[in-house]
Order: sequence, then structure tokens, then C-alpha cells
Amino acid sequence: MKKIAFLLSALCAGCFASAQFAGVMRAPQEEPLPEGFKPASTNTFISQYPAVNAQTRQAMFKVIAPYAQNVTLQLSGKHAMKKDDKGVWWYTTDPLVVGFHYYAIMIDSAAVMDRGSEAYFGSNWESAAIEIPEGQEGDYYRFNKSISHGEIRSLYHWSDVNGLERHVNVYVPAEYESNPKKKYPVLYLVHGWGEDENGWSVQGHMANIMDGLIAAGKAVPMIVVMPSGDIKTNSDVRKASGDITDVFVKDMIPYIDKTFRTYTDRDHRAMAGLSRGGGQTWNTVLNHMDLFAWMGGFSGSGRFGGNNTIETAYNGAFKDADAFNKKMKLVFISIGTVEGQGAKQTYDALTSHGIKNVVYHESQGTAHEWLTWRRALNDFAPRLFR
Amino acid sequence: MKKIAFLLSALCAGCFASAQFAGVMRAPQEEPLPEGFKPASTNTFISQYPAVNAQTRQAMFKVIAPYAQNVTLQLSGKHAMKKDDKGVWWYTTDPLVVGFHYYAIMIDSAAVMDRGSEAYFGSNWESAAIEIPEGQEGDYYRFNKSISHGEIRSLYHWSDVNGLERHVNVYVPAEYESNPKKKYPVLYLVHGWGEDENGWSVQGHMANIMDGLIAAGKAVPMIVVMPSGDIKTNSDVRKASGDITDVFVKDMIPYIDKTFRTYTDRDHRAMAGLSRGGGQTWNTVLNHMDLFAWMGGFSGSGRFGGNNTIETAYNGAFKDADAFNKKMKLVFISIGTVEGQGAKQTYDALTSHGIKNVVYHESQGTAHEWLTWRRALNDFAPRLFR
Repeated sequence: MKKIAFLLSALCAGCFASAQFAGVMRAPQEEPLPEGFKPASTNTFISQYPAVNAQTRQAMFKVIAPYAQNVTLQLSGKHAMKKDDKGVWWYTTDPLVVGFHYYAIMIDSAAVMDRGSEAYFGSNWESAAIEIPEGQEGDYYRFNKSISHGEIRSLYHWSDVNGLERHVNVYVPAEYESNPKKKYPVLYLVHGWGEDENGWSVQGHMANIMDGLIAAGKAVPMIVVMPSGDIKTNSDVRKASGDITDVFVKDMIPYIDKTFRTYTDRDHRAMAGLSRGGGQTWNTVLNHMDLFAWMGGFSGSGRFGGNNTIETAYNGAFKDADAFNKKMKLVFISIGTVEGQGAKQTYDALTSHGIKNVVYHESQGTAHEWLTWRRALNDFAPRLFR
Repeated sequence: MKKIAFLLSALCAGCFASAQFAGVMRAPQEEPLPEGFKPASTNTFISQYPAVNAQTRQAMFKVIAPYAQNVTLQLSGKHAMKKDDKGVWWYTTDPLVVGFHYYAIMIDSAAVMDRGSEAYFGSNWESAAIEIPEGQEGDYYRFNKSISHGEIRSLYHWSDVNGLERHVNVYVPAEYESNPKKKYPVLYLVHGWGEDENGWSVQGHMANIMDGLIAAGKAVPMIVVMPSGDIKTNSDVRKASGDITDVFVKDMIPYIDKTFRTYTDRDHRAMAGLSRGGGQTWNTVLNHMDLFAWMGGFSGSGRFGGNNTIETAYNGAFKDADAFNKKMKLVFISIGTVEGQGAKQTYDALTSHGIKNVVYHESQGTAHEWLTWRRALNDFAPRLFR
């Protein structure tokens, strides 16, 4: 700790007091990386590890735990790490799939977050993750300094249904402030189970994707609202109550329409979500077709089967195909090819039943993960509000 | 893992695929808390622990690590946790000081983040923290559903000095969108060493503080810009280059003035910071007095001594007290009473030298921590732009 205290006082030359941090401080890691490896883009800004080799798509992990008996990396399976003579544990992976992957470190079987990584909310707690860079294809979700950029606005609104204030992130396009009288269509975009309302902007890089589509004229300038898909509770009550569709319809949409320059008719309102958020989208939209004319489910939508037939599901929304076709301008269904057949089955059921305006999109070679959903948004957003 | 897989499929009824999470999932914790204890407000939304007793100001910590040899809580000192017969480690603290405290869990001497907590960026990595609630005094930094709320806008701007895009959070007051022609003064507000540009909005609850002051007519409606105080680097280059004052003055201020409806004269521009950010404020403002007329250092400002006399420091900014008094409308200096005498010494040096418009503010009974800085902002902001 002496070295750390020295470091602090050196860095904090402008401070009065010796800082009293209750946490533990970390020193910058300065060892050189092996040839071809660079710090992952998902790391904190001074972390060397985990490191990624973009050519081989291998990742190197490092954990300092000299007194642990057993350290394991959990990333698409469990991998025993090896301790060197300084008490540092190491593991180099086989080639990984491109994209964003959560991982955990098990120190004597306790699952901990690797603090070389930034924290990403996943599986309902703060998790480490590593981004394996795509080549040129990935440009659409990286920051492009040559174009104008929208903003993510962080707001809290009171929800009577939830009985609590709720946090929502809202993307507005770059042009929003320069057109103080212009109204915009709105896409409501929901995360999946275990993640939160920051998922689309942080893990998904949705602002970069939307900025690029809008700058290229591929998507209509739109507002994108990213709410929490959970009924959160306060510290007095930790049990969920209320219904998320009610939160969206009764509390959030009126608040958004009051706060932003939106078109408020159904033709200018879309909803989509990933995984559980896709299911929430189907429930919300199909039970409120007066509010939405566009919908998307990324790796999550409705399923038909058993008592839940295409005639009866969602209060019979699909029963009269012609009536549905006149109202719903888009039903977008997407999936990663590694995920299975569910999406295709739903697509086939809809088209066989005579539902039009259904689009099926596959992300090649990807699983239930963010690269699948970045690609889905990139394909979906240009289809809206035209 | 079977129980967890079941849980996922139950929660994810709308999903197609079995989710392929590489991380580790957590089940909700449902055990009842001891009498008087509630989940800390700093927890993730389904975490029961750590739990806080608001009356006694004690906190209970819980760590599941059945195979660890040794588990320690690090929170104002080291505290050995005790393992029960289920492999769960427990510790109940003595009464804690109110406010926001970082802490770490040591599992066999490896410092890990307690995943019952949300992640807070501190000490240059993601850290656990616990908020010990204040009584009624704390109302000024809690969400008030009876008033209008501003927004935190998250933006990226290109910086030539940094050679990279930089993230900045910008608070706009609730009325900003309803007054499309009105211009606003700007406060630049910087975090301290080891934290980041989210510190003021997340750890500091600055939006609640500003919303309350503005709604009560105690502070002028203003824009508050919260930049990173670090020169960040990308994954190719991890060495800092450039100068943070240059980033602020050459890249950020022009970007903000272009992007928001700001007054651009010095009378309508203030800068303040906490700890290292206070030092950065003194460096930036005193070397650019053509740009700023108001300044604040919270637990961090300039210090005089040795060759750095009040006559010579900051290129002689204070040398001619009368000239300084004509230009600078406010020098705000604050400190927690537990932190020491540095702030008072700087204040005394300035006033003895004939510098006017200096305000000295003490936070009673607090250290180098967020309660000190919330109180400082609450006292400082009302003094600006009048």
C-alpha cells in the first residue's frame, strides 16, 4: 500500500488532503503486451489486460491472486488459469467469435468481475466483458469522426404504475437541436433479461449505428427511447409489482410525448426489443395496436403452439390477416444463426397465415449476443417510418 | 446451474433461444433481512445485501465464497468476515459515517468488487460502494417527484489535443427545451482522480441537487458540463499525451458553445472541480481568465508555499490583488472538516493578500468523499451568475 499512497499523492498534487479511499487502489499496469496483442476496447482506460489479438481473435486474461487455490476463466465454458511464480494467473483463449462477450473469473469458485474490464450490467449484476473486434464490417458501430452525432439523454420520470421514478435513455438525432420546430417519429427499444436500459447504448453502440444510418440517409431521423424492461423497486420493497406494458403505455409514452417533439400517431411510433424485450414488444404492441404501426423482435418474439394458436394468441391480433395487414406496417423478426429455429418458425407461421410486411433477418454465425442485435438494429432501423 | 437455467427459461418465456450467456448468472436473493435493515440504495435492484440500518447506521455484508480460505471487507480499514456453515461470509459494521463509501471484498487477498453493489468507477476501476442514508438533510440530493427535472445528455466530441473522441455529460435544466431561444450560463464541473465523467451525476446526484436549487429559485438555471479530467487513450496507445487544460479550452468549450445555447462571455462561464479536479480548475481558470469569471475547488485547489508564492503562482494571477478582484467574481474553496487544514490555509493566504470574493465552506464531520462534495455543490451553485 505504500507504493499506492505515494502514487496518489503524486497524481493528486493539487489536492489538499490525503485522500481517504475506503476501496482499494490500483496501480497502472505497464508491462508490455505480447506481439500482436492490444488492450481490449472494453477495458478501463488504463488496463492492459484482457488483451486481444485482432488477427488471431485470441484473448489473454490476467488475474492477480497470489493466495487463491484455484482461478478459472468462464467464457464459453470453463478454463483453468495457470499461476506463474509471482502469483499471477494467466490464460490465453482459442480464437473467439467476433463481438461482445460477457465473462467471469472464478476465484476459489466465487464468481467475480475482472476489474481490468469496464462494468457492463448483465445477468442482473455488474459483469466483465470483452469485445473481439470485427474487421471492416464493424465500422457501422464504431465512432465515426466524419459525421454528426446524436445525443443520449438520461432522464427520470415518475411512474404511478411502478410507484417509483424510472430511468430512461433517449437518443435524439444530431439535427434535433437545429430544428426546434420539427417533430420526429419514435422507436421504443428495449433490452433483454438481466441487462438494463443502458444496454443498447453501451453494449450495443446504438448511437453510432443510428448516427451512421441517418448521416448516410439510410434511416429517417428518429428519436429512440430506451427504457428499463424491469419493474424496479426501491429499498423498502424488493418485490416487483405492476405490469411493464402498463408502465410503457400509461406512464412512459405520455411522458416522452410531453418532453420531446414527437409525432404522436401510431404511424410514427415503433417498438422493438431483444430477447425478453422482443416478447415485451409483442405483448405491448399487439395489445395496443392503436399506438404502434411497426414492431421488431431481435432473438425474441412471440411463439405459437399448444393453446396459443395464431388465431387466439395476443387476443386474436393475427386472426383476421387482412385487418392485421392493413394496420401493421412491419413485423421484423431476427435471430443469430447459432441460436436455433424459433424465429424462423414464427416467421413461417405468420406468412403461412397470410400476414404481410413480415421481414426475417439472420445474423450469420452469431449467437444470443450483442453482435446479433447490433446487426439487427442496423437492418431494422432503415425500414421504419417510410 | 440447473436452477439457474430453469430460472432463465421462466423469465425468458418470450425468447426463442436458450440464452447463451458466457458470464455467470445470479438468482434473486430472497432471504428476509434482519429487523431494521434494508438493501442499500447503491445495490443492484435485486440485491438484498449489503443491507443498511438507517437508525444505527450499521451495514451488513454478505459474500458467497464457500471455497475461499479468507474473506475480508475493506471499508475504512480491514475487517475479517466470518463464514457460516453454508459457506457464506458475513460481517456487520460498527456505525458508519453517513454518505457514499467505496469498499472492496478481499477473497484470498484478491480485491474484488462485491456484485451486490452497482459498479461505481473509483480508484480507476469499477468499485462497489454503499450509501449510508442521511436523514432529512439528504433530501436535497434525492429525487423529488414534485418538481421538474433536467436531463443529463451524454455526448462524444472529437478532440484534436487528445487525438480521440471524448465523452462528456451535460446537464440541462428542466426548462431548456421549453425556451428554444433562451441562452444559458455554463458551469464546467470536473471529477477527481480515479473517478470519471459520470462521477458527478452518479455518485454525486448532481441533477437532483441542481433540479432542487433551480426549482426553488435558489440557483440561476444553468448548463453544467461534466467532462473527463483524464487524457484517455485508445487501445493502440495507452500513454497519456496532451494537456487537459488544452483539451478543455481548445476542444471542449468551443464544442459546447457550438452544441448548446450558451452565453459565451466570461461572466457566464464558471469552472469547479473536486480533489484533482479542483487543481485542474485553478490551472485552467487562472491561466485563462479571459474565459472564466467564477471558480470553485472542492477538497482541492491551489496551494502556496516554497517557490510557489502567492505573487508568482499561476503566472502571477494573484499578484495584483485589485486587478484580480475586478476580474474574478468568485473563488470558492471548500473542504470536509475531517480532511485537514489545507483549504483554510489557502483561503487565509488569499484574503490576507487582499483577494476579495473568496468564500470558504466547510462540510461538518465529513472526509474526502461524496457527501462533502454534494454539500459543496449545493452551497456553490446558488452563488453563480448573479
